[in-house]
Amino acid sequence: MRIEVICTGDEVLTGKIVNSNFSYISQKLEDFGLSLTWETTVGDDRDELLLAFQLAGQRADAVIVNGGLGPTVDDLSQEIAAKAAGVGLELNEAWMTTMEAFFAKRLRQMPPNNKKQAMLPVGAEVLDNPIGTACGFAVTIGRARFYFTPGVPREMRKMLEEQIIPRLLAKSGQQTAVFLKRFHSYGIGESHADTLLDGVEAMAPDGSVKLGFRAHYPQLETKLTARGPDMNEIRARLAPIEAEVRKRYGNFIMAEDDATLEGVVLAELAKTKATLAIVEDFTAGQICARVAHLPGAEKLVRRGVVARDMTELCNAVQLLHVPQGIDKEAAEAVARAAREHTGATHALAALIEIDNAAADRIEFAGTVCLAIATADKVASRRSRVVGGRDWVRLGAVEMGLDCLRRFLQGLPVDERIDFEK
Amino acid sequence: MRIEVICTGDEVLTGKIVNSNFSYISQKLEDFGLSLTWETTVGDDRDELLLAFQLAGQRADAVIVNGGLGPTVDDLSQEIAAKAAGVGLELNEAWMTTMEAFFAKRLRQMPPNNKKQAMLPVGAEVLDNPIGTACGFAVTIGRARFYFTPGVPREMRKMLEEQIIPRLLAKSGQQTAVFLKRFHSYGIGESHADTLLDGVEAMAPDGSVKLGFRAHYPQLETKLTARGPDMNEIRARLAPIEAEVRKRYGNFIMAEDDATLEGVVLAELAKTKATLAIVEDFTAGQICARVAHLPGAEKLVRRGVVARDMTELCNAVQLLHVPQGIDKEAAEAVARAAREHTGATHALAALIEIDNAAADRIEFAGTVCLAIATADKVASRRSRVVGGRDWVRLGAVEMGLDCLRRFLQGLPVDERIDFEK
Repeated sequence: MRIEVICTGDEVLTGKIVNSNFSYISQKLEDFGLSLTWETTVGDDRDELLLAFQLAGQRADAVIVNGGLGPTVDDLSQEIAAKAAGVGLELNEAWMTTMEAFFAKRLRQMPPNNKKQAMLPVGAEVLDNPIGTACGFAVTIGRARFYFTPGVPREMRKMLEEQIIPRLLAKSGQQTAVFLKRFHSYGIGESHADTLLDGVEAMAPDGSVKLGFRAHYPQLETKLTARGPDMNEIRARLAPIEAEVRKRYGNFIMAEDDATLEGVVLAELAKTKATLAIVEDFTAGQICARVAHLPGAEKLVRRGVVARDMTELCNAVQLLHVPQGIDKEAAEAVARAAREHTGATHALAALIEIDNAAADRIEFAGTVCLAIATADKVASRRSRVVGGRDWVRLGAVEMGLDCLRRFLQGLPVDERIDFEK
Repeated sequence: MRIEVICTGDEVLTGKIVNSNFSYISQKLEDFGLSLTWETTVGDDRDELLLAFQLAGQRADAVIVNGGLGPTVDDLSQEIAAKAAGVGLELNEAWMTTMEAFFAKRLRQMPPNNKKQAMLPVGAEVLDNPIGTACGFAVTIGRARFYFTPGVPREMRKMLEEQIIPRLLAKSGQQTAVFLKRFHSYGIGESHADTLLDGVEAMAPDGSVKLGFRAHYPQLETKLTARGPDMNEIRARLAPIEAEVRKRYGNFIMAEDDATLEGVVLAELAKTKATLAIVEDFTAGQICARVAHLPGAEKLVRRGVVARDMTELCNAVQLLHVPQGIDKEAAEAVARAAREHTGATHALAALIEIDNAAADRIEFAGTVCLAIATADKVASRRSRVVGGRDWVRLGAVEMGLDCLRRFLQGLPVDERIDFEK
């Protein structure tokens, strides 16, 4: 089945906004085993929209159109859809009622120009939008079924998942259930991960489980897309494969599905009513900024300290003997002092010695020294990261949080990673 | 002149990476008074690429193609460009020499498959890439001139600016110079800014200056695109308009052109050899994280302190009398204590009282109290921000930095902004 996407709107065409709606749609379809062949972006222009609809209608089986369903004069999707389908527009009374209720609930009068949002091509099938006034709809243009979605991301996402993907799966003849399992890791590069998981797909001999990756440095997301006649069957098929992925990745899996590294760290702290102090230099507060604003962190993150100067850093945690230079021992001393000074049960120290280079080149490197201290234990690691100023900083932030996760879970903090020299 | 863009590559088509190359190209063209009409994304697929090239070649005057110039088998741009242009491929000896020198400089042997990157359509015009091995080139397909660029963002950006935009300007008959002036502000919404600057464009009566906005909350970028026969003429035309924009925006302009708010803050601190302490609660270290990692900050940012609990926060800066609740006076007391405790010349305290709401809704609000203290002065402001947990936090970070900028520049810190209730 050939599926295309058409993105509309001057804001997207002129690059005023980056088209993240498109990548979301494409990834979501991939998660359900559906693939896109073509994407077109045009502005709020009648002639270009009509041509884009006609061309896609000649080529594709299904087309998802994003944007142009708003109440203003530059929202043209319904009008051009009707023209391309060779039909007129008519008022959808049911959607008018829905919109009136939407405004009434918010104690507001519906502005007259919202009526435009209920004008649909004759014969269009309504795609419900329970969280906005833009009415989604489906019509046939040429040989393709077109699905029109709003530009507002959360409305588009809901409509895609609840209304469009089921229709696409039915249309594709895949009358099966689909489930996406995700693993989040840090420290394994994409090509290494691909090698590590070699043969995992083949554990489901009928090709019902597909393996995929999405790298967003420093993290890697590993995805298993599974399909089957129903969810019970899928769970049964996936269970041994999930177990195998966990076995092969070992301690590198930080979180699964919607969980995040920072969420896992907070949950581990909460388990034992622990509290945390974080001391940073070059990471500049970015480790603290990943966790301390989250709901629940107000009880768990006791203090964050940032200083770029070692003497100042030691002052801040009342470490009298200022270490000469940055190494594992220095990080351990700072972590111990921070714990004692703040009264937190756990302290993380992240000290980075960056190259004394004027230019920020790809060869720019930093030596990251991390330590975690409790009342009776201390763990530390040293790592050399190369790849530019931002690369080193982002890597150090992730490594700091992941070391803490490992420590809290009783795992070794110093397993070799792919991003260190 | 009709200009189109074709983005290629499975990574972009499947949404694995968000297509920020496209928005960059489109914005950069807009900056030079050139507009796009159409964008197409296709994967690494011979048939789809050929069709995309042919269709764009029928419609457009100029087409920029991004991606597919690499050394691997799925990089197909040269091959399909040649096919669409109806010519063969031939080795470009000059580019082979360039590539060999590129590898020699890095003390590496050129892998044999890089030779593919020097195979260009017969008759192609080379577009130089001084920072990579992918050779840009231009060929004619149908009625359009096609410009092929690498997918690596920094290589594409350099080639676009140095090689392609001059050719497009020449082709469009605009033998004029173009200059882009940018202002960065915080606190004025886009529609308010549009009203504020009403009539500014008309100050250049021949339409040679165009006004545009790009909102990326919390900041707003205001752009003046000016064209003229040469740069001296442009500067003369722009000068009164720039002055008018500065006058109307007043204290709201934080930085101009490539300067950033955080850079301006650091530069102001450096001017008087001042040093800074930053105390945060709900912003969780994010104010500190905006400035403390920048080159030069190691001498200017003395300390950052984060705590989510008021008693802990006061402990960290040795403020004995813990304020009851968050208000301007509390922020002032914390800022004063932080300055004294750390010995910094300036201290910024950002205290936020967030709604005690379980759900993060659009109505979620926070009261932001900011104070800046020096040895003999203190300034503060209070602001109520509504719009969800992240919105409040991002707004508070920006407001904190901007208050500091205003204080350092001797401006009032408490001018009313559009984002507060």
